[in-house]
Amino acid sequence: VDFELECVSSAGARFAELAEKHAAECAVTADQHDRDGSFPRERWAELGRSGFLAATVPEELGGLGVTSIRDLVVGISRLARGDGSVAIGAAMHTTALWNFSRLMGALEQGDDAPIGRQLRLLLRAAARGRVVICVALSERGTSLGHPRVTATADGAAYRISGTKVFCTNSPAATLFLCSVRIRSGNTPDRLGFALIPRDTPGVVVRDDWDTMGMRSSGSGAVSLGDCLLPDHVVMQAGPVGSLPADMFTLAVAGALVLAGAFLGIAEHAQNITVDRIGGGPGGRGRTGPAGRSIVQAMIAENEIDLMSSRAVLDRTGHVLDRRLSEASGRSEATEMHSLMREVQCSNMVVKRAAVNVVDRCMTVSGGAGYLSDNPLSRLYRDVRAGLFMQPFSALDAPEYIGQVRLGLDTELDG
Amino acid sequence: VDFELECVSSAGARFAELAEKHAAECAVTADQHDRDGSFPRERWAELGRSGFLAATVPEELGGLGVTSIRDLVVGISRLARGDGSVAIGAAMHTTALWNFSRLMGALEQGDDAPIGRQLRLLLRAAARGRVVICVALSERGTSLGHPRVTATADGAAYRISGTKVFCTNSPAATLFLCSVRIRSGNTPDRLGFALIPRDTPGVVVRDDWDTMGMRSSGSGAVSLGDCLLPDHVVMQAGPVGSLPADMFTLAVAGALVLAGAFLGIAEHAQNITVDRIGGGPGGRGRTGPAGRSIVQAMIAENEIDLMSSRAVLDRTGHVLDRRLSEASGRSEATEMHSLMREVQCSNMVVKRAAVNVVDRCMTVSGGAGYLSDNPLSRLYRDVRAGLFMQPFSALDAPEYIGQVRLGLDTELDG
Amino acid sequence: VDFELECVSSAGARFAELAEKHAAECAVTADQHDRDGSFPRERWAELGRSGFLAATVPEELGGLGVTSIRDLVVGISRLARGDGSVAIGAAMHTTALWNFSRLMGALEQGDDAPIGRQLRLLLRAAARGRVVICVALSERGTSLGHPRVTATADGAAYRISGTKVFCTNSPAATLFLCSVRIRSGNTPDRLGFALIPRDTPGVVVRDDWDTMGMRSSGSGAVSLGDCLLPDHVVMQAGPVGSLPADMFTLAVAGALVLAGAFLGIAEHAQNITVDRIGGGPGGRGRTGPAGRSIVQAMIAENEIDLMSSRAVLDRTGHVLDRRLSEASGRSEATEMHSLMREVQCSNMVVKRAAVNVVDRCMTVSGGAGYLSDNPLSRLYRDVRAGLFMQPFSALDAPEYIGQVRLGLDTELDG
Amino acid sequence: VDFELECVSSAGARFAELAEKHAAECAVTADQHDRDGSFPRERWAELGRSGFLAATVPEELGGLGVTSIRDLVVGISRLARGDGSVAIGAAMHTTALWNFSRLMGALEQGDDAPIGRQLRLLLRAAARGRVVICVALSERGTSLGHPRVTATADGAAYRISGTKVFCTNSPAATLFLCSVRIRSGNTPDRLGFALIPRDTPGVVVRDDWDTMGMRSSGSGAVSLGDCLLPDHVVMQAGPVGSLPADMFTLAVAGALVLAGAFLGIAEHAQNITVDRIGGGPGGRGRTGPAGRSIVQAMIAENEIDLMSSRAVLDRTGHVLDRRLSEASGRSEATEMHSLMREVQCSNMVVKRAAVNVVDRCMTVSGGAGYLSDNPLSRLYRDVRAGLFMQPFSALDAPEYIGQVRLGLDTELDG
Repeated sequence: VDFELECVSSAGARFAELAEKHAAECAVTADQHDRDGSFPRERWAELGRSGFLAATVPEELGGLGVTSIRDLVVGISRLARGDGSVAIGAAMHTTALWNFSRLMGALEQGDDAPIGRQLRLLLRAAARGRVVICVALSERGTSLGHPRVTATADGAAYRISGTKVFCTNSPAATLFLCSVRIRSGNTPDRLGFALIPRDTPGVVVRDDWDTMGMRSSGSGAVSLGDCLLPDHVVMQAGPVGSLPADMFTLAVAGALVLAGAFLGIAEHAQNITVDRIGGGPGGRGRTGPAGRSIVQAMIAENEIDLMSSRAVLDRTGHVLDRRLSEASGRSEATEMHSLMREVQCSNMVVKRAAVNVVDRCMTVSGGAGYLSDNPLSRLYRDVRAGLFMQPFSALDAPEYIGQVRLGLDTELDG
Repeated sequence: VDFELECVSSAGARFAELAEKHAAECAVTADQHDRDGSFPRERWAELGRSGFLAATVPEELGGLGVTSIRDLVVGISRLARGDGSVAIGAAMHTTALWNFSRLMGALEQGDDAPIGRQLRLLLRAAARGRVVICVALSERGTSLGHPRVTATADGAAYRISGTKVFCTNSPAATLFLCSVRIRSGNTPDRLGFALIPRDTPGVVVRDDWDTMGMRSSGSGAVSLGDCLLPDHVVMQAGPVGSLPADMFTLAVAGALVLAGAFLGIAEHAQNITVDRIGGGPGGRGRTGPAGRSIVQAMIAENEIDLMSSRAVLDRTGHVLDRRLSEASGRSEATEMHSLMREVQCSNMVVKRAAVNVVDRCMTVSGGAGYLSDNPLSRLYRDVRAGLFMQPFSALDAPEYIGQVRLGLDTELDG
Repeated sequence: VDFELECVSSAGARFAELAEKHAAECAVTADQHDRDGSFPRERWAELGRSGFLAATVPEELGGLGVTSIRDLVVGISRLARGDGSVAIGAAMHTTALWNFSRLMGALEQGDDAPIGRQLRLLLRAAARGRVVICVALSERGTSLGHPRVTATADGAAYRISGTKVFCTNSPAATLFLCSVRIRSGNTPDRLGFALIPRDTPGVVVRDDWDTMGMRSSGSGAVSLGDCLLPDHVVMQAGPVGSLPADMFTLAVAGALVLAGAFLGIAEHAQNITVDRIGGGPGGRGRTGPAGRSIVQAMIAENEIDLMSSRAVLDRTGHVLDRRLSEASGRSEATEMHSLMREVQCSNMVVKRAAVNVVDRCMTVSGGAGYLSDNPLSRLYRDVRAGLFMQPFSALDAPEYIGQVRLGLDTELDG
Repeated sequence: VDFELECVSSAGARFAELAEKHAAECAVTADQHDRDGSFPRERWAELGRSGFLAATVPEELGGLGVTSIRDLVVGISRLARGDGSVAIGAAMHTTALWNFSRLMGALEQGDDAPIGRQLRLLLRAAARGRVVICVALSERGTSLGHPRVTATADGAAYRISGTKVFCTNSPAATLFLCSVRIRSGNTPDRLGFALIPRDTPGVVVRDDWDTMGMRSSGSGAVSLGDCLLPDHVVMQAGPVGSLPADMFTLAVAGALVLAGAFLGIAEHAQNITVDRIGGGPGGRGRTGPAGRSIVQAMIAENEIDLMSSRAVLDRTGHVLDRRLSEASGRSEATEMHSLMREVQCSNMVVKRAAVNVVDRCMTVSGGAGYLSDNPLSRLYRDVRAGLFMQPFSALDAPEYIGQVRLGLDTELDG
């Protein structure tokens, strides 16, 4: 692909190179896992062994040391060319570790030193490929800032109960990052985030993911039944309804990295379409479909959409790299809305474009893409997932973006 | 405006600063010139006096020394916030001089030394604000690579005859850069480019520009009636129908710089709309139109379109800056198609987005924008011009982009 | 045009035939009136002389006796092929008289007998071509149901004061149908409708219409300065904010008839485009632009849009003809929302389609359509007016339609 | 649903009533058959028993006697609200029998009397529910007018060999209507149509349909291995490449009836969405999603799309009913292109609208629609099939429509 996104850091370049290797492996099994709705455990094992899952662990702890969000986007886009389901899981995992890496130092030096030390241990284990994070924030019938899963104080411990849904990676996850509602005596409930090991008694991974697309992302429900956890694994995060800066940063970065997966899906669809009909060596040139103006125009519209997508990820990735490194580990939530607006605009560009690109490839396929054994039939279903993702779905993002641009008070709690 | 495009070079920053000053002046008279269809001579005089028109003249010759196409785009976008008609003229003028600056050194050392020296004199004059270039390539009923204006060899001179149309800046132009069909004895006709001073006997500026929009761009017809010119002002450019690398470079760069004007128009429309209804200090906030979700969503769609536009100009601008500086002054035409594809994709993104942004501002205006004394009614007409511009209009670009992507042989001659 | 809309009644057919004759006359002067922003008085005189303006006056009173809204739509679409500005004025005039014809009988037999008799006289005069109605409902800064123009009771008379805007036809109007806020002693203000003769002392037609398009529709402001009128010319219409059934019927019918004008504009744009490039006798066939797939596809998209437009006007026209004739002269406002939903859906289809059709014709014109002397440059500006029109602009209609479909309480007061 | 399409004939009304009953039955099993990719044999048995499959058999032969294409569209749209896969199969079956009913009389009186009598027997059997037609025209790698399946003359018989694909209904079909290439001695190949009973030796129904959507339509391949058939079951149809009028009529009618299925899918998606969130009795009204302007606007856009779809089917259905009954049984192919243009425009309106309606319902569902147990996840996949269907897919229709409108020679052979 000409003019595709390239990494700016050498750590990023190593990450992207690994991503391409894993994409090739994922491509072999993607259709079968899609058909079965099964989680590609062997692919995740490979991601762990190669060091890919330690991409955002600092080099001194044994990771690749990728700190650039922009480069994370690039690597995830490459992986998504093989299997979008794996890519969205890898995006969530690596961005969560990226945030832990950012927070570790600051936390170790403050009141939250036990959490900081906990993160250091976690990151060291991650560097050895022993950690898979599941970011488990969603619940049925409520919004991000208002979890119903409770963490009830019990001496120096918490008892955590409730059910999370859309828990991507859950079949392989070793650790669940959960938003909780902290209950402690008579004080008002507070928002918190808990790191819950999979082997905690009471954790039940439902593995009940059955959807139209992204079928091998393992995004089922996780039940938490009175899980007893020491208090240093629960981070206090302020009043219910208001996302703290740390988590806002994760939300901003995570949303952009996820968008990378949808670029990769779209690039893959366009590549297989052009390879099939193109005028290059071995192709049929103008005597085949490539010679039709209507087909050329559809390929062109895809190029235009891909260009927009790459460009907004490139530019917004640079903006995040600059702004988030300028910011202290703990910046103010109020400063984050303008960044989130940029990320949400980028998301809308990329995710809509990806849907349109795959749809045009379907059209150009002349019906062949509708057959189950044609990869386009998977991409068509997978790519539609992007527009649902939190914190702002396609239904919610426009109001949020407009409110920020118009200078109105707004909430992240999409 | 948050996250607007910023220049990367200090020369570019000076250019953009001047552009903002001139935009403020242009804004005062834009509506009147639009109404009259008159050319804003006083604005062009100011552009000359301030050094703005010498933006791309090398510093050692007295210019600002802007070499970055990306920064030219930024500056033109700022100027266009004041008056799009002036901005497209300034885009053509500055890009033409940018190309002359690139060519000067190479030409001085080869067979075309007389042309090189001619360009040096021209650039020196331009640095003193005495030059306004009119890029006069279009003719009725033919394409870019097949001009019908003839340059007939007559000893050490050429006699040039014919009519050019869409001659932007022509009312103020001191020099016309014209494509010609060179006729010489029995040899086949060749493509050439002539630099024709305005005071050459036989040059008649028709000043007959009367259009729906871009009414003060002075883009009327110029008749050339047997204009006698010394042969060193006519550059040989190869066979008819095939644009030479030098001109291909100008076409690539010029198309992107022009797109900057349409970003500026769209930014201006969004800015005046948000200023009118926004929730900032002095605004009515949620009690006014800004409180309506439907309005927020329209403002958001505009932000999404503006983000795409800025991002593709940013990214493609960087690509051109890197590739065109890597290339020698005279690169191969065949290498240029991939750059032109990127530029055309960018153009489609920006020009379509600009039309849509202004249209949404119209809708949000609730009818007020339809009144002649509302600037939106001018922007709505001006912004539609972008999709017509050569070498690839909205009707032609998709086939070209698709053919390049599909690896088919293609032509620039849109 | 194949498959164009045809009238179902013989009265409608006579009306459409007249419309075509007038369209041919209007076409001659449309561009000049557009350029000047002048009202085509001579065209309106012809409309009066031919009986066109008496289309909806009952036959027994000397009119054409058109009662079908669907046929009114057809006739107005034909007239709009000549001049859209005249067509929207004619649409408002004829629909207002249609409503008066409906109301006359019922009113004559009830408490409002004086108004009924007044309408009979008015319709007789209209049959002789002596009446031009201006529907003057809009005011700056308020909504349809909340006029600020006051009608203050003064004995057996009212004194009416205030300013109306968007008063289409006002330069030629003999009678202004104005919404007013009735003030009478200590009772709460009520909504009313007054019929104000032009020669009433205090009426000042500002003739200040200056817009981007629909420039010869004469839709300027009308000032009412303490106009003294007998009380039988003011119809009581219920509480402020709530449109009465009579006026709701007029609003429903009027909105659909107006949409006919935008179909006509779009048909005209497509016709002149196909005539110019088509493959018919005298055309260049496949050797010209018509041979390009990209052009064929644009012409096809226009056909698709025109088909939708014709079909929704046909179907909704039939629905109105059936439902409004079933209804008594005074049906319940609550029953009208489902009809208004249909009309607003139709309006969105037709008005968006019309904008898109003209825009594609512009693109196919390759720039020629952008020149002031090309009719497309007028159509492009005229056609944009449709999406602003009350009671529901493109900004307001979606919420209204959605609320009605979702079974929520809603208001007509857009 | 308000303003839904209603039948114009009493036969049509009976058909639509049956369709609603069957839709309710189909709705129960649609998701399971979709999941399995299995053909709903029990549903087809019911369609046979009720007389639904004899809808277009003349009353005197025991059928319902539906002759109106418009009413067929309505009934098929109702059935599609239950299961789109069944509806497209039923559309093809009933339209094929409609065409046989048209042809029967004419054929019985001419040279093709044996075929006419054959059709009479067939229609009588169909009236008893013993016939399911599979319209088997498609083949891999060729177009409609150029079949590769051969019918080689062998005395008073033909030997038919080859493979058809996209054979909707094939698991239940008793009779295959196949296009063939007739080979006879030294004469040039001719186009023909054969009626092949399922129990003919050599017929193998592959039952290999496995697609993204329309999974229970049973549209797999059918192999024909040297099937020996008497010559009166092969209709001669003229030169290869040129569809005869009889088949053109079937193609025109069939395309419109099929479009009805996509209206039904879209109506179903909108109905379940409004029922879930609407403000009616039992709904949550404005306190739920229905209270959000953004949601109202999406519901409104769906209404607008549904209105367009219903209106074009209504209008084009009427056109076909009038024109096809005016035409003799055997009209000229050249006269058919304008009708096909109308049908293709209608198809584009309906099929695009249906895709968009289901997509918006997905968005409004907030992710719930993406789950496999939500009917929207099936509708989203099913609805995409419409744009592929022959003779003109979304890729082919614009050129065809444009060529007809522009008066160019064109071919049906999409």
